[in-house]
Amino acid sequence: MYLGIDIGGTNIKLGLVDLNGSDPVIVQRCSFPFAGMSYKELCRAITDNTEKMLESSGLKLRDITGAGLSVPGLIDPENGIILHAYNLGYHDVPLRSELLKDLPGIKIAMTNDANAAALAELHAGALKGCRNAMLLTIGTGLGAGLILDGKVFNGGQGHGCEIGHMPFKDGGKLCSCGRRGCMEAYASASSIAERGRELLGEEYADAKAVLDLYAAGNKTAGRIIDSYLDDLSSVIAGLCNAFDPEKIAVGGGFSAAGDVLYGPLNSLVAKKNFFGVPYNIVPARFLNDSGILGASYHVHLT
Amino acid sequence: MYLGIDIGGTNIKLGLVDLNGSDPVIVQRCSFPFAGMSYKELCRAITDNTEKMLESSGLKLRDITGAGLSVPGLIDPENGIILHAYNLGYHDVPLRSELLKDLPGIKIAMTNDANAAALAELHAGALKGCRNAMLLTIGTGLGAGLILDGKVFNGGQGHGCEIGHMPFKDGGKLCSCGRRGCMEAYASASSIAERGRELLGEEYADAKAVLDLYAAGNKTAGRIIDSYLDDLSSVIAGLCNAFDPEKIAVGGGFSAAGDVLYGPLNSLVAKKNFFGVPYNIVPARFLNDSGILGASYHVHLT
Repeated sequence: MYLGIDIGGTNIKLGLVDLNGSDPVIVQRCSFPFAGMSYKELCRAITDNTEKMLESSGLKLRDITGAGLSVPGLIDPENGIILHAYNLGYHDVPLRSELLKDLPGIKIAMTNDANAAALAELHAGALKGCRNAMLLTIGTGLGAGLILDGKVFNGGQGHGCEIGHMPFKDGGKLCSCGRRGCMEAYASASSIAERGRELLGEEYADAKAVLDLYAAGNKTAGRIIDSYLDDLSSVIAGLCNAFDPEKIAVGGGFSAAGDVLYGPLNSLVAKKNFFGVPYNIVPARFLNDSGILGASYHVHLT
Repeated sequence: MYLGIDIGGTNIKLGLVDLNGSDPVIVQRCSFPFAGMSYKELCRAITDNTEKMLESSGLKLRDITGAGLSVPGLIDPENGIILHAYNLGYHDVPLRSELLKDLPGIKIAMTNDANAAALAELHAGALKGCRNAMLLTIGTGLGAGLILDGKVFNGGQGHGCEIGHMPFKDGGKLCSCGRRGCMEAYASASSIAERGRELLGEEYADAKAVLDLYAAGNKTAGRIIDSYLDDLSSVIAGLCNAFDPEKIAVGGGFSAAGDVLYGPLNSLVAKKNFFGVPYNIVPARFLNDSGILGASYHVHLT
């Protein structure tokens, strides 16, 4: 049994995960908000909730083979430190050593959220069987997990693989990282929400609301989504020029938008890429569970 | 002994290459222009010149272990076909089968020019000993050869790795590929030449001439080079965000510009990349010989 810990933007999700079968099973789960918690309070809340989950499952701490953490930020996996999680306000936080105080003897491994999600798709989801593939998580940001030669690629030196912060329109829109014109600034779901606010009003400052309006045939929403698909397909075509992946799975808010967007997206990418070949862009399998599952696979493989 | 064949933009370079020692040695070489030749005439010229080289070296065809080709374009290496070499006007050209008519029984392997150059740097040049690294060839275009896990990466499906055609300022300057705003359109040496023509006049429509003027302290040339370094460092920082390479070697016209540009380039990239770490950008070792040597290593390793 593995403990999967998914640190999100506002909530922590915990799951006890059985990886023995051909498909992973989350046998017990819980979730809690952690806004305002210090990292020590966070660790205490994680271990308290883990104990509760174990109790209701009739399990003991010794039944946990390892605990995996999915972290939205830059980490030092070797030393178990969150270097920078800007959205959480955590910097140089020794999460592993703090967790070990209450989970003595447990193997704890850390990975970033994009890599965790890619690992879950690779082992049990849309990227199963691929040697070279990519998961794009399109939500508040643009996360990308790259599979190269059957393994998650975390940078040539291990610093990470931050594809979302490659340039797209260098010098253009402000990105969350402080630079201008990154892929993330144009291909994230937030950029749909931004345009929704501009063109449709405050109540459409939300990607889902704009997509619903688009599905209902609204022309302004149609213009917003067409323009977004134009940017997104250029971003993906550029990534295909460099990585030439067998498959691209899309997770996050965008994938929930429904199949209607995958047709135009696939045909635009086929037209725009350098090699002039079609690429295979599909919805990811795991949405909200990708962090818990990916973190579990990560510690399992570490 | 290997035969290295480097198909350039205007000239073909041939070399007989000895890979037995710790350093590769080109024991015999020749070069000839091939403008206007059909691919059959080209193959005949290659074999004629090869025979002459063998003769003057006292060697026979049977002394050649293999012939490698470095091609500036899209290839189908399995079938030995040049799919598209736009600059040469070759499309769907069965080069290997044509060459085999006059070089019967010889193993012939094909790679593109960026990958060939990266292979030469990896085995005997600036990238020796690296597991994950990159060669950028900055000339008329922007070629990039990516080393991942000790091997040249030619795309997840084998179509290629065309980093130069990733977006940089999407929708911006026209690129040789027909799309707008690719990395190549901003980071190639041609973009220095363009600005030289605009700001300094027709006699400075040449990167080398602008760089010489820059070295002599000319202010306009200074503005051109500063602006070019700003773009180039943003391109390289973006590539570092995705690939996090141990080392980046720079070949082509730019590397010949002298060491004076590497200082500012390294410090700009250190400031601009997402991880906030310095990267190691150095001149490539092989300039004009990278194609002959890389092609030889390629057939040696195939």
